[in-house]
Amino acid sequence: MKTIKVNLGKRSYNIIIGTGIINSIGRIISGLSLGKDAYIITNKRIKDLYGKDISSSLSRSGFNFKFKLIQDSEKSKSLENACVIIKDLALFARKKNVCIIAMGGGVAGDLAGFVAAVFKRGIPYIQIPTTLLAQVDSAIGGKTAVDLKEGKNLVGAFYQPRAVISDTGLLTSLNKRHIRSGLAEIIKYAIIKDKNLFSYLENNLKGLLNLKPSSLEHVITASCKIKASIVEQDEREERGIRTILNFGHTIGHAIETASNYDLYSHGEAIALGMLTACAVSKKLGLINASTVKRIDNLIKASGLPTKIRGTALNKIIYAHYFDKKFIGKKNRFILIDDIGKAKVKEAVSLEIIKEAVKERL
Amino acid sequence: MKTIKVNLGKRSYNIIIGTGIINSIGRIISGLSLGKDAYIITNKRIKDLYGKDISSSLSRSGFNFKFKLIQDSEKSKSLENACVIIKDLALFARKKNVCIIAMGGGVAGDLAGFVAAVFKRGIPYIQIPTTLLAQVDSAIGGKTAVDLKEGKNLVGAFYQPRAVISDTGLLTSLNKRHIRSGLAEIIKYAIIKDKNLFSYLENNLKGLLNLKPSSLEHVITASCKIKASIVEQDEREERGIRTILNFGHTIGHAIETASNYDLYSHGEAIALGMLTACAVSKKLGLINASTVKRIDNLIKASGLPTKIRGTALNKIIYAHYFDKKFIGKKNRFILIDDIGKAKVKEAVSLEIIKEAVKERL
Repeated sequence: MKTIKVNLGKRSYNIIIGTGIINSIGRIISGLSLGKDAYIITNKRIKDLYGKDISSSLSRSGFNFKFKLIQDSEKSKSLENACVIIKDLALFARKKNVCIIAMGGGVAGDLAGFVAAVFKRGIPYIQIPTTLLAQVDSAIGGKTAVDLKEGKNLVGAFYQPRAVISDTGLLTSLNKRHIRSGLAEIIKYAIIKDKNLFSYLENNLKGLLNLKPSSLEHVITASCKIKASIVEQDEREERGIRTILNFGHTIGHAIETASNYDLYSHGEAIALGMLTACAVSKKLGLINASTVKRIDNLIKASGLPTKIRGTALNKIIYAHYFDKKFIGKKNRFILIDDIGKAKVKEAVSLEIIKEAVKERL
Repeated sequence: MKTIKVNLGKRSYNIIIGTGIINSIGRIISGLSLGKDAYIITNKRIKDLYGKDISSSLSRSGFNFKFKLIQDSEKSKSLENACVIIKDLALFARKKNVCIIAMGGGVAGDLAGFVAAVFKRGIPYIQIPTTLLAQVDSAIGGKTAVDLKEGKNLVGAFYQPRAVISDTGLLTSLNKRHIRSGLAEIIKYAIIKDKNLFSYLENNLKGLLNLKPSSLEHVITASCKIKASIVEQDEREERGIRTILNFGHTIGHAIETASNYDLYSHGEAIALGMLTACAVSKKLGLINASTVKRIDNLIKASGLPTKIRGTALNKIIYAHYFDKKFIGKKNRFILIDDIGKAKVKEAVSLEIIKEAVKERL
């Protein structure tokens, strides 16, 4: 079991990473002194798989709790659904000091985190990420949000959890595609900040894809450390430091939007976005072909897509104009000088972006 | 013109108090460097009265802006209405750095502040309070919220404005009842923190009720200083310091709820709540009858109610159990040791509360 502290003053919290730790969930949460009433936001699949373990651990620690089931789909991360949950929570929470437990992937985490952020102007919440993607990314850092028709994550809050409990054992229930999607974000961390992690991924990919516990714990811990360190320096994305976490996301999000969110998983779209960002970096003379090749190889070996299918160049370019960070006439790209070294560049020319996307079409 | 700084580190801002300053609104907001796109949340009455002044000042400073009208009623401060406004804002805000201007009383301020808090995880907002109550209380301190059927202010955020612009000239359009409602909160500040302000109110009540600019500026400035100082020490109501601002509010809110929010204005209910809190303080031997009499006299002279009409003891007691701050079996009263000296007391016996309420029935 590993513990990583996210240092944010009064809002500091621990990320706990281990195998089988959900069986100690009651004891872990009790240690945080958040009262004994828990409102668990999760989906049916997770409840069917782990509901008993969670329930018995919470009961042993004297908790009163309720499971609130949501659909396991981006569609349930809507502002409307957040309102439905808030009203249900208001009934459960009457005269109680409630804490929320978000158990699931990014959808459950973002939605539950947002509800926790605004209910009574903020109540405590715990993240129990059940996907590799959530364990290395969305559960950490306090970005909570729900979607509008007008755009993803347009409504939200920066609101930190009181703990993140990442049980690598939960990942065994995921299909390979989910694992690969998480791997894409781990590869992202390696590319922007950690050359050693990149080498580790190259050398241990088979073990990771087979969910070898020690390998998983290694890469999840390394990823969480990078994310924690960046969040500590720029909690509210005000200093431009946190921005580098968006490596691969400018075009990645555009690909997701252009394909109506039903063709690629987030990680798959981000893999394609990273390859595009690499192509832009190469076109601007920041990296050479062999670096691009090495990244391309790792992404390919992970089973992630390296070619964009099912959508068109003009759709992707159109969608990238609606990026949340795209203000005025300036886009903003995260580029790399080397594996492990990222930087932000504004106003990359449309011509270069088009050429870079075309390479992957 | 007076300027009071609210010191909250990176979230610091100024409260600007003066007469006729809305005519400089464009220049004042330009000085904050928040971009040139403003989304003004207000009601029809305010727009009819001051829309032209605001528009021409903003236009002179090169702003693009939109007025979004809401009903001037607590009903418009619902979570549903917040969602409606957020969606409209999403359309206006596309590709813009928008700031929100909340122009109105507590309803517009709380609602607009909440929308600003959650849109894109927080965009800047300016408070232009148009009621005395909002100028001394709700516009300052960053408490934003909307209502659920299950309770007032159950959904919200602590989110500070970038400036509060209080034009005492706007108060001339208010009826006397609104002015008295604001006076109730000013009397509250005097009772909990400032004996001199209490004497000033006793000696200048006529001028205040006649909206004498110098008197208004004096009491608004004194009130804002008290509120700012308390908020600076306890921004998120975590240290129990901010709690004393709830003097008169435990029973005041209960009276509002018990009378379905349509009999008393907030200030009137708070006046009754303060008298009840004084009665509790006296019953517990903290203050004597002459102190109660002095407070009673000032409230009466202000034209605020001193007797509870139109609801019953059991309704008030029932409603007070649902107070947001009422956790477990403990209620929480703000009591006074003297005029200018407040303190928090938990678990006041039900018998004493009932007797205190009865005195005002």
